[in-house]
Amino acid sequence: MNEKWLEQVKWDENGLVPAIAQDYQSGKVLMMAWMNKEALKLTAQEQRAIYWSRSRAKLWRKGEESGHIQALHELRLDCDNDVILMKVEQKGGIACHTGRESCFYSVFSEGEWKPVDPVLKDPNSIYNK
Amino acid sequence: MNEKWLEQVKWDENGLVPAIAQDYQSGKVLMMAWMNKEALKLTAQEQRAIYWSRSRAKLWRKGEESGHIQALHELRLDCDNDVILMKVEQKGGIACHTGRESCFYSVFSEGEWKPVDPVLKDPNSIYNK
Repeated sequence: MNEKWLEQVKWDENGLVPAIAQDYQSGKVLMMAWMNKEALKLTAQEQRAIYWSRSRAKLWRKGEESGHIQALHELRLDCDNDVILMKVEQKGGIACHTGRESCFYSVFSEGEWKPVDPVLKDPNSIYNK
Repeated sequence: MNEKWLEQVKWDENGLVPAIAQDYQSGKVLMMAWMNKEALKLTAQEQRAIYWSRSRAKLWRKGEESGHIQALHELRLDCDNDVILMKVEQKGGIACHTGRESCFYSVFSEGEWKPVDPVLKDPNSIYNK
């Protein structure tokens, strides 16, 4: 694969860009994580979301433990070439490690962040299959 | 305003967090930019998206020049407390400085990033009103 498209991305000082995952049908924003060049290349090659885990300092094939992979439907880049947007099919309907559909389950209300979206599956049962 | 909710956000080493703006009706992801603590506080107070411009190193009241403000409908925080999601009403229907609805107008196709969304308004007419 010609890698010019990877060079066009403006990687930050750590070699990363933010990558937003959005449900390709509902439009729900599921999560945002980070990609390095290899992660983005593999995401396109394997047609599934592959991130760079900053905490674990390694590639993170989303769903590798949970089975909740994100099948890629569309890959977009923003006008500044420094943010990725993926439209994905979220397998299992759960993107968040808390067992919720989306990681953005807390809403600001009356001066507080309030969790408003339901836990669909016990996280223990997701990761100890 | 009690500021505990601002302290709960995990600001990065530069005191920033990514903030995603999504159209509250269509679900379209419009842009991603950055907020510092003051920007987030003002966003909640003024009920419009206010970012921190890293290039200009100052608060950026989205739409201050173009009139294309983003009226806040909902403010969310993710499970790691380090990404903001806003549902907004995009005034003028244009979020991008190129005159497009969304900044994510380029799609990865056949090894290239290809602009696929239309320019709705000449950028010169947006900024030289």
